[in-house]
Amino acid sequence: MQLTHYTDYSLRVLIYLSQKQPGELATISEIAEFHGISRNHLVKVVHNLSTYGYIQTLRGKNGGMCLAWPAAEIGIGEVVRLTEPNMDIAECFNKENNSCVISPVCNLKSILSDARSSFMQTLDSYTVANALNMQGGTAKKISIKAVK
Amino acid sequence: MQLTHYTDYSLRVLIYLSQKQPGELATISEIAEFHGISRNHLVKVVHNLSTYGYIQTLRGKNGGMCLAWPAAEIGIGEVVRLTEPNMDIAECFNKENNSCVISPVCNLKSILSDARSSFMQTLDSYTVANALNMQGGTAKKISIKAVK
Repeated sequence: MQLTHYTDYSLRVLIYLSQKQPGELATISEIAEFHGISRNHLVKVVHNLSTYGYIQTLRGKNGGMCLAWPAAEIGIGEVVRLTEPNMDIAECFNKENNSCVISPVCNLKSILSDARSSFMQTLDSYTVANALNMQGGTAKKISIKAVK
Repeated sequence: MQLTHYTDYSLRVLIYLSQKQPGELATISEIAEFHGISRNHLVKVVHNLSTYGYIQTLRGKNGGMCLAWPAAEIGIGEVVRLTEPNMDIAECFNKENNSCVISPVCNLKSILSDARSSFMQTLDSYTVANALNMQGGTAKKISIKAVK
């Protein structure tokens, strides 16, 4: 039971941007280098985060991206809902592909659905701002030198 | 975010066996035919369910298998913990393969871990007996004719 790399990378981009100062922009190359993630992977991630409205991008020589909202207003749960392509815990969640013959008399789907709701409700109680360790009320600055 | 087919099939075998009468045995071929699952897949599933102590098997011409415990005493959560090979929600859960450079200052792992605990706690509140719709206090008999 795993989240996709796509969801993982989306969260990492948002967490990275959350420690930037107001007005400070980051580039895809910078984040790719910092996280050691393929730039090509991040292009799609960043494009979609922009489409969802989580980040603002500025084109041009001095362009880059920043969070469109305060990190404390971006819920981890909502990001996961948007980025995770398949929340079908088991085959019976997918009406088109479900071949399970006991579905009409089986409660397993509702049991798993209940567990999935608990999972998402817990994520809903956290924001991107919670993802960085807080020191004295402010997020600890992510520093390539400090971490690497 | 999905459970593996292996976990799904393990639960289906237990649910199938739960509607048998005391002393009534089922064969792998019978369950494979009923569920439309490859017999080869089920051999491994049944072998491991037997190893875990959930089912008893009887060899021989009239052999077969039955639940080793009442269905109401087999927790869905414990089955999922035993059968799901990977509960690492994201890369940072795996110490050996984790390449995320912000792990030392990042709370994402504890946030996802918290959500995973909520997921499992909910599953822990259900048993295999809960997986079949109850009618008048008894589980509705799974019938190939009725369902297919």
